[in-house]
Amino acid sequence: MLKDLRDAVLDANLELNRRGVVLYTWGNVSAIDRDSGLIVIKPSGVAYDAMTADDMVVVSLDNEVVWGSNKPSSDTRTHTALYRAFPEIGGVAHTHSTHAVAWAQARRAIPCLGTTQADYCAGEVPCTAPLPPDEVQRDYETATGDAIIRRFQGLDPVAVPMVLVAGHGPFTWGKDADDAVHNAVVLEESAKMATLTVTVSGPNPQPLEDYVLDYHYQRKHGKNAWYGQN
Amino acid sequence: MLKDLRDAVLDANLELNRRGVVLYTWGNVSAIDRDSGLIVIKPSGVAYDAMTADDMVVVSLDNEVVWGSNKPSSDTRTHTALYRAFPEIGGVAHTHSTHAVAWAQARRAIPCLGTTQADYCAGEVPCTAPLPPDEVQRDYETATGDAIIRRFQGLDPVAVPMVLVAGHGPFTWGKDADDAVHNAVVLEESAKMATLTVTVSGPNPQPLEDYVLDYHYQRKHGKNAWYGQN
Amino acid sequence: MLKDLRDAVLDANLELNRRGVVLYTWGNVSAIDRDSGLIVIKPSGVAYDAMTADDMVVVSLDNEVVWGSNKPSSDTRTHTALYRAFPEIGGVAHTHSTHAVAWAQARRAIPCLGTTQADYCAGEVPCTAPLPPDEVQRDYETATGDAIIRRFQGLDPVAVPMVLVAGHGPFTWGKDADDAVHNAVVLEESAKMATLTVTVSGPNPQPLEDYVLDYHYQRKHGKNAWYGQN
Amino acid sequence: MLKDLRDAVLDANLELNRRGVVLYTWGNVSAIDRDSGLIVIKPSGVAYDAMTADDMVVVSLDNEVVWGSNKPSSDTRTHTALYRAFPEIGGVAHTHSTHAVAWAQARRAIPCLGTTQADYCAGEVPCTAPLPPDEVQRDYETATGDAIIRRFQGLDPVAVPMVLVAGHGPFTWGKDADDAVHNAVVLEESAKMATLTVTVSGPNPQPLEDYVLDYHYQRKHGKNAWYGQN
Repeated sequence: MLKDLRDAVLDANLELNRRGVVLYTWGNVSAIDRDSGLIVIKPSGVAYDAMTADDMVVVSLDNEVVWGSNKPSSDTRTHTALYRAFPEIGGVAHTHSTHAVAWAQARRAIPCLGTTQADYCAGEVPCTAPLPPDEVQRDYETATGDAIIRRFQGLDPVAVPMVLVAGHGPFTWGKDADDAVHNAVVLEESAKMATLTVTVSGPNPQPLEDYVLDYHYQRKHGKNAWYGQN
Repeated sequence: MLKDLRDAVLDANLELNRRGVVLYTWGNVSAIDRDSGLIVIKPSGVAYDAMTADDMVVVSLDNEVVWGSNKPSSDTRTHTALYRAFPEIGGVAHTHSTHAVAWAQARRAIPCLGTTQADYCAGEVPCTAPLPPDEVQRDYETATGDAIIRRFQGLDPVAVPMVLVAGHGPFTWGKDADDAVHNAVVLEESAKMATLTVTVSGPNPQPLEDYVLDYHYQRKHGKNAWYGQN
Repeated sequence: MLKDLRDAVLDANLELNRRGVVLYTWGNVSAIDRDSGLIVIKPSGVAYDAMTADDMVVVSLDNEVVWGSNKPSSDTRTHTALYRAFPEIGGVAHTHSTHAVAWAQARRAIPCLGTTQADYCAGEVPCTAPLPPDEVQRDYETATGDAIIRRFQGLDPVAVPMVLVAGHGPFTWGKDADDAVHNAVVLEESAKMATLTVTVSGPNPQPLEDYVLDYHYQRKHGKNAWYGQN
Repeated sequence: MLKDLRDAVLDANLELNRRGVVLYTWGNVSAIDRDSGLIVIKPSGVAYDAMTADDMVVVSLDNEVVWGSNKPSSDTRTHTALYRAFPEIGGVAHTHSTHAVAWAQARRAIPCLGTTQADYCAGEVPCTAPLPPDEVQRDYETATGDAIIRRFQGLDPVAVPMVLVAGHGPFTWGKDADDAVHNAVVLEESAKMATLTVTVSGPNPQPLEDYVLDYHYQRKHGKNAWYGQN
């Protein structure tokens, strides 16, 4: 059952751990097979060093377990909400990486202060509104996805592949699981740079000029992107 | 004499060191065998890389050495005070981990700013009151335990398994030695996130909404907890 | 074609990565052969762990690829602008190292606060002015070099071998590729120390006395330098 | 010539590097043989990974090279000044460790904010006054030692085995080279904790109560010290 995708999701979860953005089991990565509408996701609370592709869980877009003997990640319903709302994305990652969490706890969007962030995200990293009590009680994990989706009204999730959930932490996504993990690592570094910029310059540093932001983003991701070897 | 427990306490002390929350010999872990009322604890000032299960020391709840040729940890009387006051706990850890010490030196409780802390601690991490001079002179290590116990009047040590001793550093506990170490590592990461949140948002960030805090804590530790594979 | 120089540039790029100042492929080092006027530079977007001397690209001072099957670094035109303007330099390095980027994002020169910086840089680390929109549209990478060159009017690029590009990050240089990398690592450490000094003392710490700055710089780099074994 | 002491000084220099408080060659350790009045010190600007006991240099208390083919550390005259003034000490270490340098650059003594520092230093870590221009010109390295000695009028260098040189960085000492290195590592950690305490609590945190400071220091170093196994 989706063996190649399970291998890819396992690798992406292990890469998340190797990159130092995960403590204990505090992260999860998934990917979707758009043809079948099935999602492969990390199991809940399993240690990274013993994890195999057979531990991965296959779930439907309606959160039904389709394959696997483990329980899926506790954040599964947030992942599926994102896949349903953003048809262009193929992978989702969630971490509690230190600096991204600090901005989420401060309930502040990370302004785009320099080209490092602009190379991956076409503007600020948005932050969701807090969840009201009834949504938390009804279905917290789905509500978390819905809060992200509400925040992205008017935003392009391909150009802005990352978000902070207020009081919680970051979710990132991309064309596949690897890309989602790459964005999780970039977000943590951007968040660290932004924290240090605030330390050096005071609470409201000047954002990058729009025309530099746009140039950098297009150089790597635009229609005529020429960064790299392809 | 309590060979299994000595093995477990040795492993927990080594894990504390591996997780990077200890410099030199600045940490100690113990566990209690509730049937006999005996406690196994790390010896004082012995380097981690040469430590064996035979170096562990067995003491009674009255701080008498019952087994072992080493002197027990200099903080032994604090550990035994906690075991006497909190009958539900099975292990205790003490470190000088950097960020937790910073909050202890600032003499501030760590507010619960996000779900990372809420997953392990049902609210803020409390901070003790300073010790008066006569208590320091009479029996400093027992007085440290007593200051913790006073601070926990009205608090549940199972739901709040961690504390800061003002001007000193953190103590954590749990159902066994491993659990106490896990909480010591989580506390250091929570303290780091809280420090960075203060840097980003100013000195008094908004705490996590009570109903989110409660949801997260219950999801992992409540009667109907469903996080993980059990 | 310039095999020795390609080996040296490869080594310098790998050293940049080993020193922890590069995430993913976010750095590049070049060196010039002044006799032929040819520059060896890292290819664009290639991972460090698979890179060989044959991946290096040889370009002219006019940015023409002279040898190699890869595309050169996206920052090549900045490197060549520096080689054209500063005839004394033999190597150039560019990174997005965390603390140096924070000062570039804060658009602040790093004042010379202590002997650590004075040992390598005869004064503050300057920061460029922002680029106007038309320069970004016309030829952003050359314009970045030109902004650096404008900032160095009246400065000696041998005595001040490092600069911050506002909203972007650091460029460093030296007598060869190794020296440029060494300066990139030193700059990151100086920037970190300056950030922490601001944290401890407030936004405008006292700069190092000129006569101490001068003594330290001359001890290592002056005509009568006596530091080291030569 | 003093082979055992050269071995010990080599080991101490390598330990300084292993502990992560040295970048490149930015540190040096020495030790004195009080019987002969001879000092063994690290050579100037030699990389750690190629260093042997034969690279060490033996100098007299008057800074004459007595043995060895290398030039001694550029800071030799500071070391000898300390050995002349403080007859109780057997080893000296100098680093540019990041957080200790930040306090030296901020020209602030590190207040004793907690028991971590109190376990090694009986009070604040003092900071020297700046050097006047004529002292820098005449003999900077000796003047640095003299500034430390002036600052220690009325202080006991055994109870306070560390100092910050304003605008420069830390010197530490102890009964031998190992002890000096141990204190250098402890000072860096104390300085980091103090920086974070300032971040959490504002610029002037409350120092540790004198009676707790004294209790902790005496427990480890006093006449009736009982910490550890001896």
